[in-house]
Amino acid sequence: MTNVIQLGMGPLGVKMTQFIRQRQGIRTVAAVDPDPEKTGQDIGELGGDEAYGVTIQPNLDAALTAADTQPQVALITTVSDMMRITPQIEACAKAGLPVVSTCEELFYPWDTSPDLARRINEAAKAGNVAVIGTGVNPGFLMDTLPAQLTAVCQRVDRIEVHRVQDASKRRIPFQRKIGAGLSPDAFEAKKIDGSLRHVGLTESMQFIAGQLGWTLDKTEDIIEPVLLDREREFPDVLVPKGYAAGVLQTGNGYIGDEVKVKLVFRAAVGEAESYDEIIVHGEPTLRSRIEGGVNGDVATCAISINACKTVLDAPAGLHTMATLPMVSNFRW
Amino acid sequence: MTNVIQLGMGPLGVKMTQFIRQRQGIRTVAAVDPDPEKTGQDIGELGGDEAYGVTIQPNLDAALTAADTQPQVALITTVSDMMRITPQIEACAKAGLPVVSTCEELFYPWDTSPDLARRINEAAKAGNVAVIGTGVNPGFLMDTLPAQLTAVCQRVDRIEVHRVQDASKRRIPFQRKIGAGLSPDAFEAKKIDGSLRHVGLTESMQFIAGQLGWTLDKTEDIIEPVLLDREREFPDVLVPKGYAAGVLQTGNGYIGDEVKVKLVFRAAVGEAESYDEIIVHGEPTLRSRIEGGVNGDVATCAISINACKTVLDAPAGLHTMATLPMVSNFRW
Repeated sequence: MTNVIQLGMGPLGVKMTQFIRQRQGIRTVAAVDPDPEKTGQDIGELGGDEAYGVTIQPNLDAALTAADTQPQVALITTVSDMMRITPQIEACAKAGLPVVSTCEELFYPWDTSPDLARRINEAAKAGNVAVIGTGVNPGFLMDTLPAQLTAVCQRVDRIEVHRVQDASKRRIPFQRKIGAGLSPDAFEAKKIDGSLRHVGLTESMQFIAGQLGWTLDKTEDIIEPVLLDREREFPDVLVPKGYAAGVLQTGNGYIGDEVKVKLVFRAAVGEAESYDEIIVHGEPTLRSRIEGGVNGDVATCAISINACKTVLDAPAGLHTMATLPMVSNFRW
Repeated sequence: MTNVIQLGMGPLGVKMTQFIRQRQGIRTVAAVDPDPEKTGQDIGELGGDEAYGVTIQPNLDAALTAADTQPQVALITTVSDMMRITPQIEACAKAGLPVVSTCEELFYPWDTSPDLARRINEAAKAGNVAVIGTGVNPGFLMDTLPAQLTAVCQRVDRIEVHRVQDASKRRIPFQRKIGAGLSPDAFEAKKIDGSLRHVGLTESMQFIAGQLGWTLDKTEDIIEPVLLDREREFPDVLVPKGYAAGVLQTGNGYIGDEVKVKLVFRAAVGEAESYDEIIVHGEPTLRSRIEGGVNGDVATCAISINACKTVLDAPAGLHTMATLPMVSNFRW
């Protein structure tokens, strides 16, 4: 039995506890959230399910004290940025807990936040625990899997990844998040306040480059609306002519003038199809496609829970998905 | 610069040295083959290319003595079975050389040859070197990649892999190897003498099962001819009606009565299309497809050369593709 402490009981944290509940051989034994609305609640009841027997505590110390069974691994779903995740990981490492986190910037912080990456690496080694940032994106579809595919290449010229999703089949908060139904001005405002942005494209590019032994001279992370040329009505949203159906976010990683890594994330209502496609241009050129795409919510929970097994056995330090032994589904 | 010693100068060994020659940052500094026809020849000239400056030696000791630069990693392309590869790896480990080998049974010998696997593991640890068996198949397309895809699965019910190749576009020795143009009786005779068999299907099944925490109760490895119902003429071979166009090899891995791992390898002249497809049945169900398939010769050389980098930095012991850090293309 693997015992998990859940840090962060937002929507993703709740889903993690629900996913863990469905599985054998792993369980949530403690949970933390500083929100006074959540503290004291049972984690099962917070998610609208039956009580699970674990009460949310306001901080790590309180949770470790309250737990009947001591946790062996921390699952952190709190923040997206390195600045705020660092002290949380340091506290876990000090408590001897290996860490799996969905913090997007943690996926590959060696170029974007080298000082904090080093701090976490040192704390992990001092605590003799492994730390990994993972998820579906960043974490798998646009970085780990493309890099993995190059294993069979004698030469790689450039890498292209397309993650395209028809958002009309996704939940309404997701449609809102990608700006479906917004005027160009409203889209621009959301883009500027940062609430539209998918975090992690730069980290994904740097991961691929690092793994392939490339040094990128420049990276771009471009956000544009997908504008419709005629009015279209979808089950959950009406998009007037000239308004946004969703977002097109493009990452370009350059060596000199050449785009060596191109990551295209396109999520909009009314896309003709959903798919995840990787094209490795080289010898040989490989085109790998997952028809229908991979649902982000399920995949992020699954890979994080699967990684709990991997970090338990891994050498101490801040890992990437390439330095860690393989994360896969596992029947405990 | 990574310095490689090539053990085995058969067609695959020659190709390895040619592939290494095309790359930067890695070079062949020594080569071994006991064949008196090859001993004393330059590795480049043996492959019909310009001289490379490395003379083939009859054994490891002679090669290490002859080498101007000491090798750091051994690339072994000699045999397919554990019995014969074991002493070769022990000798390398004793000489302090990490090993990458295309020996099919070495890919995952923990169920099929546990005693020899332990012997190699101990020798590797004693020599403080990492050892890996890899290749395209076994090694990647029908085992490592499917297991890797399950990372984003909350639940895996069963796994199915199809590697289908139109052999009419492959070289003639490959068409012969798969029995294209043979009568059913001649096919059966080749099947019985073992020369038709793709080695490694059982190891691939056991790898997937081991990585997912499954214990297979039984495995099957079934070889059948792909028989044509009418005469067909291909550029390199005529297949009469009722004769074999190639081979269909199926691996079934059972838990109880249920096939949990199904690996289908089909190589025949006149196949409508070539592709590599993985279907992970579970939550979510994933269908990943590489259109056109992956050329086996290029891919096996590439992954072996790419793995040379990985074993240099890996912990000592006999690894699998799941315990080793990620193998990917790398620009040294």
